Amino acid sequence: MGSVSRVQAQQMHFEAALPLRSGASLRDYTLAYETYGELNADKSNAVLVCHALNASHHVAGVYADANGHDDRKTEGWWDNLIGPGKPLDTRRFFVIGVNNPGSCFGSTGPAQPNPDPAAGGRPYGADFPVVTVEDWVDAQARLLDRLGITQLAAVIGGSLGGMQALSWTLQYPTRVRHALVIASAPNLSAQNIAFNEVARRAIITDPEFHDGHYYAHGVVPKRGLRVARMIGHITYLSDDVMDAKFGRNLKADELAYSTQDIEFQIESYLRYQGDKFSEYFDANTYLLITRALDYFDPAREHGGDLTVALAKATAKFLVVSFTTDWRFSPQRSREIVKALVDNNRSVSYAEIDAPHGHDAFLLDDPRYHGVVRAYLERVAAETSK
Amino acid sequence: MGSVSRVQAQQMHFEAALPLRSGASLRDYTLAYETYGELNADKSNAVLVCHALNASHHVAGVYADANGHDDRKTEGWWDNLIGPGKPLDTRRFFVIGVNNPGSCFGSTGPAQPNPDPAAGGRPYGADFPVVTVEDWVDAQARLLDRLGITQLAAVIGGSLGGMQALSWTLQYPTRVRHALVIASAPNLSAQNIAFNEVARRAIITDPEFHDGHYYAHGVVPKRGLRVARMIGHITYLSDDVMDAKFGRNLKADELAYSTQDIEFQIESYLRYQGDKFSEYFDANTYLLITRALDYFDPAREHGGDLTVALAKATAKFLVVSFTTDWRFSPQRSREIVKALVDNNRSVSYAEIDAPHGHDAFLLDDPRYHGVVRAYLERVAAETSK
Repeated sequence: MGSVSRVQAQQMHFEAALPLRSGASLRDYTLAYETYGELNADKSNAVLVCHALNASHHVAGVYADANGHDDRKTEGWWDNLIGPGKPLDTRRFFVIGVNNPGSCFGSTGPAQPNPDPAAGGRPYGADFPVVTVEDWVDAQARLLDRLGITQLAAVIGGSLGGMQALSWTLQYPTRVRHALVIASAPNLSAQNIAFNEVARRAIITDPEFHDGHYYAHGVVPKRGLRVARMIGHITYLSDDVMDAKFGRNLKADELAYSTQDIEFQIESYLRYQGDKFSEYFDANTYLLITRALDYFDPAREHGGDLTVALAKATAKFLVVSFTTDWRFSPQRSREIVKALVDNNRSVSYAEIDAPHGHDAFLLDDPRYHGVVRAYLERVAAETSK
Repeated sequence: MGSVSRVQAQQMHFEAALPLRSGASLRDYTLAYETYGELNADKSNAVLVCHALNASHHVAGVYADANGHDDRKTEGWWDNLIGPGKPLDTRRFFVIGVNNPGSCFGSTGPAQPNPDPAAGGRPYGADFPVVTVEDWVDAQARLLDRLGITQLAAVIGGSLGGMQALSWTLQYPTRVRHALVIASAPNLSAQNIAFNEVARRAIITDPEFHDGHYYAHGVVPKRGLRVARMIGHITYLSDDVMDAKFGRNLKADELAYSTQDIEFQIESYLRYQGDKFSEYFDANTYLLITRALDYFDPAREHGGDLTVALAKATAKFLVVSFTTDWRFSPQRSREIVKALVDNNRSVSYAEIDAPHGHDAFLLDDPRYHGVVRAYLERVAAETSK
């Protein structure tokens, strides 16, 4: 098994405004994307990869460093899953990673200039329109139009990416043959929304947030971003893996008896993750993406009935959950499975016994990867050469 | 069943410094406390109630309002459990509630003047010494000395209060006949510490924290306190009760498509709780109490062996946990039970099937209160009249 190796990000500009679920629209915009593998003659082997909160179009491979060598530190976020001979095999599939609008990794987002003449060339900031999972899927569909791909062999995503995969089957049922929905949920629970809201309040009440127009002040609401990321990390890891990895291990040999200094290694880990995140992630993007998570709820317009909501889907499904994922627990995946089965849809379901919590969908677990590989081998077999 | 009705807080001053586990000591200090019921002739019917993070010595009854009437809004935090005819029956027991040093509800704490002459009469602020569960128990024991109580019929507490009850049996084994340890744990897990650390960072990085000396600046780090309290509330409630109480219910009829405005009722609830808390709770106290939680770990000095640690205890125990408590899960209570059983101690254990999560220990659940009532009736029967 190899890596797709050296890759290059591409950009595509769209002149036509994107109408959004909010009623607003996104004026002309750019999407960053990458592709791996070759599109076959009848364009039937495309697989779209949808990203979650802290990720991008850079799904696999590495970029070149300043000296023209591979920069291993730039490895794509799902490189363990995608590549020649890997579960999502780039020798058979043409894989597309796309960055969603509102992100801070290349597609048009709040840090970029607001095209509204009244904005005078300043960044969108908090005026970037609120985007939803459905809006992202629309933007992805336009990209596929331009690439000449009328139907996807499969759409795949984990967590928020899984919500996009599910939404594809509802918004464009005839354009997707298979959906792989991993560590996801049909909507957020009250507790999920609660964690998002605390993170948002930490950012918005940071004095350096400046109502979302901090760019003009030359500052970043890093305090809020740090707290947001620390909360996130707690929910991504299982209680068990945190105990196994950090437990009550101390930073030093002796207790310092301090409320401000680091005593426990878990504190050190969280502070490090928070600091790192606050260096590169955009605060407005964090608000937008957590809101998109909150809003996703295909059953809403059907009186909360997920079975009715999923009746539109005609794709075949692989749904995967992880036993120790308490953010999007197996129970939430089973709700999706049940609604699909109620509709007599073809659905495979795997509940992977993994200790890593929600993060498991990003890790190289042999049982998990085995299930994805086997499923995609069947997809490849039915896809014309 | 009645209420203990009108009560008055009392104060006791201690001239002798309290040596602390950190090596520092607390100079002369005051403890706020309340008592309900009558101490019997041989002083054998005293029950000490230990409080958790956001509570005080005001355990039962109400205070008078400005017009001399009962002010129902001032009801003690465990009034549903304690009173004439209630599970902890004040017709049989002399009940003592005591506020711990470091608190912001009456006992000496960081908002009060630092007696160190170098401080020039300013509040302790961040210079208040770090206090531990063991230090609090020492302070409580001194209060009992002054009240002439050599042995408690029982010590009772929930959550952090349960840790104090457990610590009583280890620090003063001969001074306590029964310990009621409710919704507690033998130490915090890595995840528990992680949540505390995020809350602390939110407070400490609030620009209005001023290194813990915000009193002098006439400000309060309210942003940090709000975030801390919101995080706390998420961990106090079960996922299920949050879904039952709030679910995905919207504040308005329609979505507003906003990252900053309230969309969901759970957001409204959390913001309200955060705002309220930030009005009355002291930020330095929050840091001190969460640190005391982090540090508590009687097994630490025994190589992590809880059975060895609890060998000192001679009291009889009632341990209670709640099925949906994910902060201090039943598994953590069972660790205490197992260590006591390993030592051939008398221990009753009840795992209450309650939907309310950690907060259940404060609520009036008939099965829970029935267990406590039955246990305390046996304690009363063995206590001389």
